[in-house]
Amino acid sequence: MISLYSAATPNGHKASIALEELGLPYKLHSIDLSAKEQKDSWFLAINPNGRIPAIIDREEDGFTVFESGAILMYLAEKTGQLMPTDIKGRSRVIQWLMFQMGGVGPMMGQANVFFRYYPEKIQPAIDRYQGESKRLFQVLDMHLQDSEYLAGDYSIADIANWAWVRTYRWSGVEIDDLPNLKRWLDVIRSRPAVQKGIEMPPSALDFEGNDENAARKFSQDTLTWVETGQSR
Amino acid sequence: MISLYSAATPNGHKASIALEELGLPYKLHSIDLSAKEQKDSWFLAINPNGRIPAIIDREEDGFTVFESGAILMYLAEKTGQLMPTDIKGRSRVIQWLMFQMGGVGPMMGQANVFFRYYPEKIQPAIDRYQGESKRLFQVLDMHLQDSEYLAGDYSIADIANWAWVRTYRWSGVEIDDLPNLKRWLDVIRSRPAVQKGIEMPPSALDFEGNDENAARKFSQDTLTWVETGQSR
Repeated sequence: MISLYSAATPNGHKASIALEELGLPYKLHSIDLSAKEQKDSWFLAINPNGRIPAIIDREEDGFTVFESGAILMYLAEKTGQLMPTDIKGRSRVIQWLMFQMGGVGPMMGQANVFFRYYPEKIQPAIDRYQGESKRLFQVLDMHLQDSEYLAGDYSIADIANWAWVRTYRWSGVEIDDLPNLKRWLDVIRSRPAVQKGIEMPPSALDFEGNDENAARKFSQDTLTWVETGQSR
Repeated sequence: MISLYSAATPNGHKASIALEELGLPYKLHSIDLSAKEQKDSWFLAINPNGRIPAIIDREEDGFTVFESGAILMYLAEKTGQLMPTDIKGRSRVIQWLMFQMGGVGPMMGQANVFFRYYPEKIQPAIDRYQGESKRLFQVLDMHLQDSEYLAGDYSIADIANWAWVRTYRWSGVEIDDLPNLKRWLDVIRSRPAVQKGIEMPPSALDFEGNDENAARKFSQDTLTWVETGQSR
């Protein structure tokens, strides 16, 4: 049995989607981000960085894994699934996983902070991060022109990128001009394990929807605790 | 023989340090970032994201690897060095590598953009990214209180984090209050392969120095081509 400490964010859902895909038994412990539970000392003992998700593998003497990308790799290696075992096939998956970890995630995350949460409207920062997110989407779209998935068969690279890219509207970035990316989003969204994974835990807002009133309300509620880097 | 396409940046130096540590024969091809050579079609065929570093392994039918974190993992797996081979030991290294890829790199990178390059002084953005970089340094410092390196023996996790953290002054973040981090920086800096790696290619500015006049001049020269997200 695996204990998953998570919340309804793209990084959190990466872990739950992978666990669902692999059919591994797990127990979800929802972390209350608004209460800063992820900064409690019991949680820092699992992840010294104080961020979700993290897992404890009870089958492996309570082995702990933090960082969403490391959790995906650990689960893939533990099961021999969702990532090839030969060095080149593995590397192709790792390259697109790193593309998400160092690019798509941080850039969409910053777009969200300045577009959705930040109390002042700092247009140059919004433009920078929406622009960089769009550029990364274009790289994905171009790559998906010739292949169904990012790196050979469906893999943890697809799970990692999909969990972020599906929230493009929340980041304020359009993808109407990116047909291959849209096709790939739809193919992965149709997987039952993916649909289950993004409900573990469920989001208070439909991040794939376009209800701007609901988005504004969610943003206001979240602003009371999200880390914008501004002291309040 | 490995072909390394790189430039004098923290991500570039991760790859050259690892190649030097492993004693692998390689040929450095310096990419002229000011001429946007990394966006030329021949380079996009190696890395569709148009960023350095990237490698071609001529021993493996010209296998290409992009994303600095993926290059480190590929080289470690190819040689069986700088990363344990058991699943738990590997995972510990991967966790701290991902911490750098998703945290230290992106946050210091954004601090550099707004503190050093951005034409306007946008204080909230500077504060956000310097503050988050400092918080990540504190996590490293706390972790290094009980261990010499980040994950067992010296590994690619140390190389990845070191190549960024050593440039803390360039990001405008002080570490005088972080004795374990300073000790770790010094230990790794003393390695001959590391000293060689950060000269492949050499930087125009001493990123570990504190010459603010030189830093300003370097910043002005670089501003003509660095991607701030602002059209000029």
